[in-house]
Amino acid sequence: MRAITIAEPGGPEQLVWAAVPDPVAGAGEVLIEVAATAVNRADILQRMGFYTPPPGASPYPGLECSGRVVEVGSGVTGFVVGDEVCALLSGGGYAQRVAVPAGQVAPLPEGMSLLHAGGLMETVCTVWSNVFMLAGLSAGETFLVHGGSSGIGTTAIQLAHQLGARVIVTAGTEAKLQACRDLGADLAVNYRDEDFVEQVRKATDGHGADVILDNMGAAYLDRNVQALAVNGRLMIIGLQGGVKGDVNLNTLLTKRASVTATTLRARPAREKAEIVAAARDAVWPLIEAGRFRVVVDRVLPVEQAAQAHRIVEESGHVGKVVLDVATGSGG
Amino acid sequence: MRAITIAEPGGPEQLVWAAVPDPVAGAGEVLIEVAATAVNRADILQRMGFYTPPPGASPYPGLECSGRVVEVGSGVTGFVVGDEVCALLSGGGYAQRVAVPAGQVAPLPEGMSLLHAGGLMETVCTVWSNVFMLAGLSAGETFLVHGGSSGIGTTAIQLAHQLGARVIVTAGTEAKLQACRDLGADLAVNYRDEDFVEQVRKATDGHGADVILDNMGAAYLDRNVQALAVNGRLMIIGLQGGVKGDVNLNTLLTKRASVTATTLRARPAREKAEIVAAARDAVWPLIEAGRFRVVVDRVLPVEQAAQAHRIVEESGHVGKVVLDVATGSGG
Repeated sequence: MRAITIAEPGGPEQLVWAAVPDPVAGAGEVLIEVAATAVNRADILQRMGFYTPPPGASPYPGLECSGRVVEVGSGVTGFVVGDEVCALLSGGGYAQRVAVPAGQVAPLPEGMSLLHAGGLMETVCTVWSNVFMLAGLSAGETFLVHGGSSGIGTTAIQLAHQLGARVIVTAGTEAKLQACRDLGADLAVNYRDEDFVEQVRKATDGHGADVILDNMGAAYLDRNVQALAVNGRLMIIGLQGGVKGDVNLNTLLTKRASVTATTLRARPAREKAEIVAAARDAVWPLIEAGRFRVVVDRVLPVEQAAQAHRIVEESGHVGKVVLDVATGSGG
Repeated sequence: MRAITIAEPGGPEQLVWAAVPDPVAGAGEVLIEVAATAVNRADILQRMGFYTPPPGASPYPGLECSGRVVEVGSGVTGFVVGDEVCALLSGGGYAQRVAVPAGQVAPLPEGMSLLHAGGLMETVCTVWSNVFMLAGLSAGETFLVHGGSSGIGTTAIQLAHQLGARVIVTAGTEAKLQACRDLGADLAVNYRDEDFVEQVRKATDGHGADVILDNMGAAYLDRNVQALAVNGRLMIIGLQGGVKGDVNLNTLLTKRASVTATTLRARPAREKAEIVAAARDAVWPLIEAGRFRVVVDRVLPVEQAAQAHRIVEESGHVGKVVLDVATGSGG
């Protein structure tokens, strides 16, 4: 088969569509013929050499895919050859075929195209596990998500809004802020002009945000803690604003608040399977009722992965940049 | 009645045993004739002017007491005049009488003296709510508690040990370390000579501590995060080592770990009642089976509260410094 390989750590030009050995379905795995995958920030970090795939994972980038089951490993029940599916991967989505533990595979939601489903799993599982399973966001609470127009952001806005939370987002352009409002954000704060701590305080009559989903790490740590409500939960899933953070523990203590940092990719397969099952139970009905969709900025052929990475690195996009594998040059 | 009043914010000499108005039992409250109370760090902060009692709380210090019910407010069921009880207070334990919401009152455990029960509730509820209810410490996990010989420490060691966790403590003298071992600590680390991060790593074959209970705040924040296991939970309940902390968020993220800071006193009565009920269910059977006790360093008459504060401030004690109110000079 062919896959996007990383020639050596560096820029987008290092991504090469090359012939590689075919994977096989091990025990408990299914082999998927990939229809589509999508770009995540972790792919960019991996390309740059900052994110070593966990032990046993494919060396190729790609944390999610859609496609068709072409082989079923021993001990797998619930899938047969020919099923249309989507999957949460530890790597290897930028490829024509990928083997994945069956617990990380879900049936294609009714009414969703394989192309869109290629960008479904990573953000849905990240948001579901952090915002709902760990932080326990509930109806009537206030939810703040930074980078509202990102793949994570557009997923988080829709899920929190549909489940009855009040949603506040930050983003950096009017077009992005409007996209967030269109998805259900109650308040969209331009972080270039406005202080989100103050805006959250005003919008909530001083209550603050019950749950914050953050991708900025150190740069926002102290202000995120300031923006939290009593019993607030700050969930950090990215460190785009740095690693070494300062925090006022007295503020945290007074609010009886928590700071949790997580990454989905490194979790053991058992935990991933629990997350996939929970996300499927919660989100598939929303998709099938037309209440949740994958926001796709654009679709590029997988051979143009380098260009797709540039687009995400420039942060001009809204939602997911999807890579079309099925209609690629094959070879 | 008489109570220990704080003449003005300052040293122990500001604590004055003075005549004050009698409290009454409001709706949903019971009035307790206090037998004993005990010193907590929060009392010292309150005396110094750094810890304003929450709205509605008694102005006198004292976060726990034992005693006898002398009046039952409207709507209270489950208690009658004459019952021997112990209670978690928002303040006012250093007094001959105190009114408290009935949900924060529990029957005296069988086999425990009123004197010892005066030092039971604050540490049991703090440890139970943080280590078990919030952090979910479970049998087989590793638990690290700093200040192992404190009231909190001696409570945490016993509960974690009895419930099947492996217990590591830090303390500063050989006598304190030995007291911790005698209570069930598997490893006692002298923080003056040894690096607890390294000692935890060695003792757990690199796994780290699943739950840490910390009273040092900023001074230990980064090292506590280093000492955490994957999925570890750091619970901060005191800031004796300062407020402004630095933390490496990449370490936290890689470990999928959380930092939570809480204080019990400011929680609403409803939450306190849940904690008291849970602690009673879990700990009373251990007390009655002889598997848990209040470690009492010494008992002083309540009129000597100033001396009791000096003892706790000098940190030479092991366990609780109890104040005897029942046999005091009355007046």
